[in-house]
Amino acid sequence: MERTLYLDDLKVGDSFRSGEHVLDEAQIIAFARDFDPQPFHTDPAAAVQHPLFQGLAASGWHTAALTMKLLVTSGIPLADGIIGSGGALAWPQPTRAGDVLHVEAQVLEVTPSRSRPDRGMVVMRFETRNQHGELLQSFTPKMVVSRRPA
Amino acid sequence: MERTLYLDDLKVGDSFRSGEHVLDEAQIIAFARDFDPQPFHTDPAAAVQHPLFQGLAASGWHTAALTMKLLVTSGIPLADGIIGSGGALAWPQPTRAGDVLHVEAQVLEVTPSRSRPDRGMVVMRFETRNQHGELLQSFTPKMVVSRRPA
Repeated sequence: MERTLYLDDLKVGDSFRSGEHVLDEAQIIAFARDFDPQPFHTDPAAAVQHPLFQGLAASGWHTAALTMKLLVTSGIPLADGIIGSGGALAWPQPTRAGDVLHVEAQVLEVTPSRSRPDRGMVVMRFETRNQHGELLQSFTPKMVVSRRPA
Repeated sequence: MERTLYLDDLKVGDSFRSGEHVLDEAQIIAFARDFDPQPFHTDPAAAVQHPLFQGLAASGWHTAALTMKLLVTSGIPLADGIIGSGGALAWPQPTRAGDVLHVEAQVLEVTPSRSRPDRGMVVMRFETRNQHGELLQSFTPKMVVSRRPA
């Protein structure tokens, strides 16, 4: 989509699909060294020994950050930006090197503000999946979305 | 704390405080260029004009990633690592350049697994605050924690 979307353009059930991000081992290790330096995220040999991961896994926050990148660069062109105040986050399974990520988005709620006529609240569900369709992350944020100027 | 903590060492109400991270404008812009390239995260001049942020703000995912860094490097030395399957995430107010972040952690639930005698589930609340005590992020994950070997 090229055009800018306002609250008025969104309705419950609308869905979007982002572009793709190809994840490799070097990206996983670089992110983890900065933000989540645990051996199962930084050291492929050590990760094999980990009872849960049994191999290198991306930090969940790396999956989350890449999800945001996909939404911003190829997802939903919301007026005034993609701005969330939080929501329920889940990582059902690890993200691995070689995964090709995309995001599937669905509009769950659209609520114009009663006190602020220029904006409203939208609840969306973002599912981050790999090339096999496996669900790596779900996030269901409340977002602030501008209304179309009169 | 230097020692390794197992499920058996944690009880409801236990609390921990991490070290600190000094955030500056360059870090905010660098993270946002990679993962959240929106003008209110990458361009201080444009950010001033944004109706909600009114100045450069860190990506919420940057706050989340720095929270994880603080927990891993100075927070809670859990055996087998700090591993969450997700939880409720909220950003009550923006993180700004000049903020000095720390994390306050509290144990909310400790539940040994019935099917897996080597582990259990812990619910914690992580509050990320700045030097003024302002709450920037809360996250309440379910975590998998190993039991002390017999």
